[in-house]
This record gives sequence, C-alpha cells and structure tokens, in this order.
Amino acid sequence: MIIVFNKNKAEEGIAELRKKFNGQKQIFVNNNRVAVQGADENELPTNILETVEEVITNVPAAVQGSRLFHPQDTVIHTPHAVIGGNEFVMMAGPCSVESEEHVKKMARVAKKGGAKIVRGGAFKPRTSPYSFQGLGEEGLKYLREAADENEMDMITEVMDDEHVEMVAKYTDIFQIGARNMQNFSLLKTVGKTNIPVALKRGMSATIDDLLNAAEYIASEGNRQIMLLERGIRTFDNKYTRNTFDLGAVPVLQKLTHYPVIVDPSHAVGEWDLVTPMALAGTASGASGMIVEIHDEPDKALSDGPQALKPKTYLKMAQKVFEVHQVINNK
Amino acid sequence: MIIVFNKNKAEEGIAELRKKFNGQKQIFVNNNRVAVQGADENELPTNILETVEEVITNVPAAVQGSRLFHPQDTVIHTPHAVIGGNEFVMMAGPCSVESEEHVKKMARVAKKGGAKIVRGGAFKPRTSPYSFQGLGEEGLKYLREAADENEMDMITEVMDDEHVEMVAKYTDIFQIGARNMQNFSLLKTVGKTNIPVALKRGMSATIDDLLNAAEYIASEGNRQIMLLERGIRTFDNKYTRNTFDLGAVPVLQKLTHYPVIVDPSHAVGEWDLVTPMALAGTASGASGMIVEIHDEPDKALSDGPQALKPKTYLKMAQKVFEVHQVINNK
Amino acid sequence: MIIVFNKNKAEEGIAELRKKFNGQKQIFVNNNRVAVQGADENELPTNILETVEEVITNVPAAVQGSRLFHPQDTVIHTPHAVIGGNEFVMMAGPCSVESEEHVKKMARVAKKGGAKIVRGGAFKPRTSPYSFQGLGEEGLKYLREAADENEMDMITEVMDDEHVEMVAKYTDIFQIGARNMQNFSLLKTVGKTNIPVALKRGMSATIDDLLNAAEYIASEGNRQIMLLERGIRTFDNKYTRNTFDLGAVPVLQKLTHYPVIVDPSHAVGEWDLVTPMALAGTASGASGMIVEIHDEPDKALSDGPQALKPKTYLKMAQKVFEVHQVINNK
Amino acid sequence: MIIVFNKNKAEEGIAELRKKFNGQKQIFVNNNRVAVQGADENELPTNILETVEEVITNVPAAVQGSRLFHPQDTVIHTPHAVIGGNEFVMMAGPCSVESEEHVKKMARVAKKGGAKIVRGGAFKPRTSPYSFQGLGEEGLKYLREAADENEMDMITEVMDDEHVEMVAKYTDIFQIGARNMQNFSLLKTVGKTNIPVALKRGMSATIDDLLNAAEYIASEGNRQIMLLERGIRTFDNKYTRNTFDLGAVPVLQKLTHYPVIVDPSHAVGEWDLVTPMALAGTASGASGMIVEIHDEPDKALSDGPQALKPKTYLKMAQKVFEVHQVINNK
Repeated sequence: MIIVFNKNKAEEGIAELRKKFNGQKQIFVNNNRVAVQGADENELPTNILETVEEVITNVPAAVQGSRLFHPQDTVIHTPHAVIGGNEFVMMAGPCSVESEEHVKKMARVAKKGGAKIVRGGAFKPRTSPYSFQGLGEEGLKYLREAADENEMDMITEVMDDEHVEMVAKYTDIFQIGARNMQNFSLLKTVGKTNIPVALKRGMSATIDDLLNAAEYIASEGNRQIMLLERGIRTFDNKYTRNTFDLGAVPVLQKLTHYPVIVDPSHAVGEWDLVTPMALAGTASGASGMIVEIHDEPDKALSDGPQALKPKTYLKMAQKVFEVHQVINNK
Repeated sequence: MIIVFNKNKAEEGIAELRKKFNGQKQIFVNNNRVAVQGADENELPTNILETVEEVITNVPAAVQGSRLFHPQDTVIHTPHAVIGGNEFVMMAGPCSVESEEHVKKMARVAKKGGAKIVRGGAFKPRTSPYSFQGLGEEGLKYLREAADENEMDMITEVMDDEHVEMVAKYTDIFQIGARNMQNFSLLKTVGKTNIPVALKRGMSATIDDLLNAAEYIASEGNRQIMLLERGIRTFDNKYTRNTFDLGAVPVLQKLTHYPVIVDPSHAVGEWDLVTPMALAGTASGASGMIVEIHDEPDKALSDGPQALKPKTYLKMAQKVFEVHQVINNK
Repeated sequence: MIIVFNKNKAEEGIAELRKKFNGQKQIFVNNNRVAVQGADENELPTNILETVEEVITNVPAAVQGSRLFHPQDTVIHTPHAVIGGNEFVMMAGPCSVESEEHVKKMARVAKKGGAKIVRGGAFKPRTSPYSFQGLGEEGLKYLREAADENEMDMITEVMDDEHVEMVAKYTDIFQIGARNMQNFSLLKTVGKTNIPVALKRGMSATIDDLLNAAEYIASEGNRQIMLLERGIRTFDNKYTRNTFDLGAVPVLQKLTHYPVIVDPSHAVGEWDLVTPMALAGTASGASGMIVEIHDEPDKALSDGPQALKPKTYLKMAQKVFEVHQVINNK
Repeated sequence: MIIVFNKNKAEEGIAELRKKFNGQKQIFVNNNRVAVQGADENELPTNILETVEEVITNVPAAVQGSRLFHPQDTVIHTPHAVIGGNEFVMMAGPCSVESEEHVKKMARVAKKGGAKIVRGGAFKPRTSPYSFQGLGEEGLKYLREAADENEMDMITEVMDDEHVEMVAKYTDIFQIGARNMQNFSLLKTVGKTNIPVALKRGMSATIDDLLNAAEYIASEGNRQIMLLERGIRTFDNKYTRNTFDLGAVPVLQKLTHYPVIVDPSHAVGEWDLVTPMALAGTASGASGMIVEIHDEPDKALSDGPQALKPKTYLKMAQKVFEVHQVINNK
C-alpha cells in the first residue's frame, strides 16, 4: 500500500504511521509518498485520513522501485558523472584489469571517446574454475589510479558479500553481475552501503525478477541503483552470444525510476556487431552505455572477441552521442 | 560450390558448366559467380579451369542468399520506392484493411509521414478460427486504390498458394507472414512470380532457418526478397508481445545481400513502446520499417493495442528519418 | 458460450438455438452441450431456458477442443488401432519412405514391436530446398502396401492443401507437421475430410496456440484429432535437437479431450536418448507414441541420427508397454 | 589433458607428474587417471611415457565431472541412503520448515512413502525481499530432529558462504539453489567441506554451465555431488512454472558420473501435474527424486500450489517405485 500525503502535512502523517506500525511493518518514505509493506487499507489510523490525498492499494512487490512510489526519475551523481535524467553516460574500459599500464592506457582511450566512467574487472565470474579469475585487490588499485589520473569515476564488479567492504574502498559504483542478480545476500550487503549499484539483468531474468532483485538493495536503504540490460538467453545463439532485449529499456522506464544502461558488448559478444547495437541501444532511450575496449583483443585475458579496438570505439562513441542528441531533442 | 569466373570469360565458362551438369544439378548465376548445387570440386570440367578465379567450397545451404554468391547489396525497385542500399523505406498502414474509406484515410497519413508504401491485410492469419479473417479480394481493391491515389506502392500478405495469382493482380510486394515462414509450397509459388517478396521471420526461426526459407523463394527464380525482423518468442513475454531481436539486423547484413526491414509494431505489441523500438531499429542499420497505424485503435478489427495514432506516427517518423541520416552519414 | 441442456430435452433446445442464430453464429453440438460462437447469454431465446441446465460463459477461444464442451475423452478408431482412452498406441516406421522394399521391411519391424500404425514421409518439409523432398505419391503407395501387408494402418504427412485429396486416397491418418501447425488453409482443408488428423505442435507454439490450431480443423467439422508433442525450441540445444516438453501431456489432458501422442525421436534428435524419453513420455500418461526406426541409420535419407535400429526399437517397445501397464493400472 | 596410467604403475607416474608440475598446474587424480589442468601433451616427462596407457587431449573444461576422467558412476552414501548407481532415492518434505511440529509430521509422511531423506528450507531464496525468508538456524534444528526421529537423513539449502559452517553442523546434504548455481564463492566454500552437495540447475543454465558449476565444487576437493534437474525457463509458462527438461537426464548421464535427481515440484509448479512428471522423471532413468509435500497446501508459507497432500504423495510414491523397478530390470 502506498499512501500519498498532502504535501505540507506529510511529516505528521508519516509520524503517525510509524507510531501505528512501529516495528511490525516496513515503512519506506519518498517525500510525501509512503509505502507500508504488507499493510491493509483498513489498518490506517483514522486520524491521518484527512491529510491523505490518495491510497494506492494495487502496488507491485518491488514497491520502492516503482513509479507509483517514486514518480520522478532517479538521477545518480558520482564525482564526475551524472546518470539518469536527460544525460547520456558512456562507461568504457577493458573487460578485465590486466595490468597497471594496460588499464591506464585504456582509460585514456575511454576518456577520449567521451566516457566519464572507466570499467574493468578485478574479480571475474568465469564459467569455468580454471579460467583467469582476475587480479583481485591489486586490480582495484590500478583501476582507481587509472580513473583518478583521467578525472574519471570507476565501476567494477563485486562478486561476494565478504568483498564488499574492500571493493568499497576503491570504487564509485558497484557492479553486480548477471550470474549474481539473485544472490540475495550480496544484494543486501551492497544495499547497506551508500555507493551506487549497477545491477545487471540475469540471463533469463524477467523484468519483474530484475525489479525484485533491485528491491533487495533498496530494502536495505540504498536507492542509488541503475539497471543494466546485457542480453538474455534465447534459442537464437549461433551468431550472437545473447539476444539484446532493447524492448526492456522503455518497459523498465515505464515501470521504474531507476536509470537504464545498455551493455551491447555482452549482448552480442562479437565486436563487429557492437557498433550497430550501441546505436540501437542509444536510440531506444537508454541513459547510458557500458562497453568493452581493448587495444589487442586477440591477447585479452577475457572476452576478447567482443572488445572494440580504440579506433572503432572512438568512431562508435561519436555516432552514439549524435544519435542521443537527436533522440533527446524533444 | 561457387565458381568465380574471370569477368570477361564468365559466359563461356557458364555455358560449359551447363553442358556438363545439364539436368542433373541446379545451377544459379550471378554475373561471373555460379553456384552449382551439390557438385564437388573435382567434377569441374577441366577445360574451364583457366577461366576460373576462385572456387569456394565451404558454402552455406542457402547459397543464393549468401554474400559469397552475391557480394553486393540487393536493391529492390518498386514503382515509387527503393528498398536496400543506403535508402530507408517507410511502410505504414492499418493492420487490416477495414473499409474503403478507412484504408484511404490511413494511406494519406502514412504518406504524410514519409511512407512510400502502404500496408494492410486483406487475408489475416488469426490464431483463432473465430476471429476476423479479413475482407479478402475486396480489401485488396481498396488497398490498391489507396496506394494509387497517393502515388504509393502497396504491400499485403498472401497466406495460401492458391491465392498467389489473385493477390498478384493487385500488389507490388507480397508479404509472407511469420506463421507461414516455412510453408514451403507457398514460398515456392511466390518464387515463381517476379513480384518482390517480404519474408517475415518466424516466431522461433533461427537466422539460418530464415535464410533457408528465403532460399526456397530464390530456388524458383525470384531473388527480389527482403527479410523482416518482427520479434521472436522468448520467456520474456509479460510486458511485450515478443522480443525484438535487433542483433539479427547486422547479423543478416553480414550473411546475406537481401535488405532487412524491421517491424517494431509486432515486435513489442504495445503502441507506447513502438516509437523507441522504431528508433532503435533504424539505428541498428535496417533498410526500412513497417509500422501499423490506426486513427481509432480501440475500434481496430485486429491488433489495436500496437497501432500508432496518426499524430504519434508522424512524430515518430520524423525522428526515424533524422536518426537514419545520422547513421547513414559515413 | 456453452449451453448444457437437460439430457432428454436437448434436441428441441438445439432446434430453437439454430432457429434463433440461423446463419449468424456458428453452432457446435456435442450431445446435450452446444457452443454458440460469439453469442451473449442474454441473446438466448427465453423459451429454451427451462430446458437448460447450465450456461458456461467463460470459455476458451478453442471451444470445441475444450473439456467444457466435450468432457469425455475423444477416442479415435482406425481400422486396426484405437487412439485415446486407456489404450496406448505405438506408431513406428522410417522418417522417409525410401523405397518399396525398405518401407515394407521397416513395417514388419514396427509390427513386431507392437505397433499398430506404420509411419513414413512421402512429402518431406525440409529446411533447405536442396535436401531430399520425398518420393511423393509413389511413396504413399509403398507405405499403403506396407501397412496392408501387415494388417496395420498408416500415418503420413500432408504439406499442402492441394495434396489433401490425393493423400486422402491412401492414408488412415493425416499428419500435420510442426512447421505447418499454423498453416490455416491446410488445417481447414483436412478439417473438411473425415480422416483423423495428427497435429504436431509447432516449435514455439504455446499450449493455447496448439489448441487454437486444432480448432481450425474442428471448425470445419472434423473432430477426429490427436495432438503430438515433439519438443520445443529453447536455449538448450547443444546436446538435444529440441526440449521435450512432457509437462504438456498432463496440461493438455486437463484442457482438452483429444488424445496426446509423444514423439521422442524429434524431441531429442539423438538415437541414444530416444529410449529414456520414450519411457518418460509413456510414464507421463500419453496415449501413444510415434517413433522413427531404420535398419541402417547412416544411410537414411533424412533424420538418420535419431532413428532407432530394429533391435533397440524392439527392446524399447517392450519396456514402453510394461511402463504403460504400471501407469494404467489404477 | 587426462593421462591414463597402467594400473599397477599409476603411483609412480603420478609422483613424477606432481614433481614436474609442482605448484604450477592443478592435478586431479581418480585411481589411475590423472587430469593435469592446462598442460600440453609435449610437456609430459619422458620417463613416464612407458607407464602411460592413453593420453586424452580433447577434454571438456569441467574435467573432473567428465566420464573421461571418472568412467564409473559416483555413488554417494549418506547414513541412511544411497544415491547413484542402480538405487532410486526418494527425498520429500515441506518447501519450508514452518514449525517443529509440522516438519516432524511431514517427515513421518515422507518416510511412509519410502523417502530416506527429508527436505525442508530454513533459509529461503525468495524473489521478493518482503516474502517469508525462513526460520534460520531454528529451522535447521527442527529438520535435524525430524530426520533423526525417523531414521532419515536431511537435505537443506545453504544460500551464503558465511552460513556454510553453521548449516554443516546440521545437514547431511547441502542443497545449492537454482539462483545460486553460479554463485562461485558459495560453490567453492561447500567444495571445501566433505558433505555431499545437491546442485540445482539454474533456470537458464545449459548442460555445460551446470557441469562447470559442479566443477567449482570439485576443484576444491569435494566430488560428492549430485545434479538436480528442476525445470528450465522457456516461452511456455502459462500452465507450468517451468519446462521440465527430462532430456537432460540421459544427456547428463552420458557426460558425467554424478547422480542425476529430478525435482518435479519446481519443474511444473502445480500439484496436479506433479504425479505424471514424477513418473516421467523416474522413467527417464533418474537416480532419485525430490518432492514437496504439505498437509494443508493452502496455508503453506511458500510454494503451496505445487505441494502434494500426503495421500497423493503416497499414491505417487508407490507408482514411482514400481516404474523404477520396470526401468531398472535389465
């Protein structure tokens, strides 16, 4: 149930609600809108009724993420970037942090293409236990330096709840990978921080699954969330790694206030398909993009086939911003 | 096997091949390139070898549709439109031809938005036998007139091989629906005409299935084919009718020379998602778009929920052409 | 809307309904149950109300196939077999009719394993136009003789509506292939005959799609229908051709009165997986099975990899009947 | 690479390999078979070559799970049950441990139906953060007592690596849920124990994904693994929660030595479909089954709709063992 209070009487109404449901129901507040988890309309204290503008009873399970609870867009501010609203944010970098020198080189390329945020994995969730698993904390340091030297922010994946504290020392944005989208203890742990979280949609997660996973983060207090569409698993997997579900972009924008970011690299998995999909993702109305780049894809320690070489990336990035301008010009 | 002849000696080489394989193997010719179906390299007549530039043995089953056989883009010319190459063609109209007056009104709207081709179904493949099945030949007449009055071309679906002859009297382009993508006798029948064919990808057709279906048309002599991506069936079907597989656009463009058209209306099935998907489809590099419009969607005889009202269509179309210009500007 | 009449007053009630809706609404009758397509409860003639036991208004689109219209199981009788009810029918034979001698040999093997019906394709729907397309009418003759010599019935695929008449001269059961499940004119054409139809579920057909396709047949008068589960297309396609959806068996049995047959050969596509899937299909409660056999799978003209050799088939068939006995013993 | 040693000379060969690759390559041993991770055939010490029977170079990434490394079936022994080989093990119990009394009652029912292992969740991975999350450690105690009082073993889900130690104090078998199938740190943590692990296939995990996830467990030393097929996510989700992929049973049995268990409850999600799918799963050749039971499904704290009432369970279980006997009787 969501209660919409009269704007100048919200404070007292909320106080009453807290008194009434104290310790029994979870209460979430967004200005004059209050969600009371699991409560029934006829449990409302009668003395608040005249300060109430509307009671919305048909609410989705992922209530904090819904537009009903939070009609305006969430806009996330990191030191050098704005994510959400009318902005379009470019995030680029290598799949894995491979070495200090390499990640710094890639950060410079990313910056040149207009990226405000550099990406790179230090902890890699690999299908096989015998594949390269990342440089660990050392990788985080290199990525931090690469970001700082270029006046950029960084995003990196955290795979385990016990690593959250350590990764938090370095990163501006936590990335939760597709395989961990429903690792609920990890979600709750990042939900207890105040660092923005980029939540990747699981390979076969429905829209509702994704919103409920985001709600695990929000339920612990952190609503600085962005959602990443990175392709879903379908029967059509001979020529592309996944099926890029761009319809999810406007669907999510209708249902939720969180910014939606697209990841064309993982969606298709082949570098020569990345540019058209990056343009399509931009035209679909996404708030930004995360893309993998590498100067020598053949030697990449992970996901080489989908990495853009610097020259291709720069050309793509330019077109992306041009398309965004057309789209954004209302 | 594809044999690439020396350009000025192709004619005699082809004559030799015909003599050699006369009546035993199917032979397809594209300028100096010849595909011999099911033949082996060592069956080649030795007297042609010096006029041969290259023999390509690793060819896909759908050989005529492949870039190996036909490296340049196929560009289709209808009386008022060009489909393929650098052009972007807009096709718009109602899902079904509902009445003479209505389809003419819609054609005028389509035209105003830049459409060169008006669409409308006279024979409707409906999931249930008890749903509206279309106006039949009467509908074709109305659509023909609607096109002519606006100096446009028309596209309409043909569902049965026995209707091909009749539909051919009216239409500029045959549309083969998703459910009929592997109706092989229908494909062969339109393959015997010289009218362009727009082949819709089946709901769960792989890229190879689609190319093989196109090959059924080509194998009868008609290579005026365009391919339509209209969404595939996946687990993700609560908020959209299908999953729009835009990755298929660049994949097909890499593999085949046929123009690729996108159908955002069927892909998502909800009118408020059509504009972002139309823009995404354009940005993906498609050669054109087919879209459903209706002035009173609530009263539409079929697929009302996905129809754009005229005003929304016109706004969308303008953005679409702007995005195409950005994409096309190399 | 379904009207259930008092058993001994059904005749007059039906007569009244026909009079009332004459030529305007389709009326389908099953004993004392009558479905009036697209009519509303308050259109019922008042003079029949006292003979009416129940009016069911919430009916599925595929009304004739529903248990609401036809609560009892449909049981189909061919000259030598019973399909539906408590019977379990085995159908076996080669994928394609390859020669007179071969199909007769295979029929004898099929018979030995307990099959009452021999299968074999004379018209083959092949993904590529350049693959073997079947022997045509000649193949039908051989299959007919193979059936007759062994006192069996035959089942064979019909691909085009123009072939229906010719195939009807030979076959006891029409098979409609998965690719043609929504070839509506073909469905209507076999619906006008009185020959039983085995309708294969399309590769990505939902349960409702399948029931609506069956309804196209029933809407023309032929309710001698059986439904074939043959695997659906999913992401999981490396080790099996399709995903055998055995959950569809009890789901269909709940919703419809038509017998459900399983096709483990196409479902998995690999011979060494066919036996466990045949047993699983039997245990799921299916009314029968259709399976491909070949004495020399390596030389089969189509689908060799999924064909069982005679010895394996005979062993499998014995277990199948044993499992059916356990399942059937209530 | 897998090296197969001469049986009576394996010991010395292995010693040589350890010396050669000491600390550089991971070495796994199964009797006279040794897998050396990431090594090349020509790196083998020449002095061992004459004790080598075979070198297998084309091995899957999940090498320890493969039949090449471990040709014989893995058979797991818990105090009261045998899992694998020719045995068929029944595991049954409520979805969640709801109370001491209730879980004990359900354990008695389970036992009566032939179950050797009682199931029950104390930590529940729920899609929404606001759903019942389980009784925690208290639930584990109740389940332990319920098992002990009936001379049964218990299986329960562990969701986080930090809970592994605590759950280990109670359980005989760890269950890893579908959502956590690629929670690699959890897999590694249970891999460090010597308690058997039941690994559920993820909703859209391929066969190879599942085997690689199992390999994460094995790579830490624990090869007491069983694999659970519990339905995959497909387009077909109106009448069943998931699509039961029974083809995975024989496919897995061909590729791996780990026992395969089926979970018909989650596969279909509707109690009246569970019995036919339980029978189908048994007939497919699975080594056992895990099934949810509840005396009052309407009041169940989770997954009520798929729970079997005791009477239905007992009837189902009897048929299941009868079918297994038929299947197993070679």
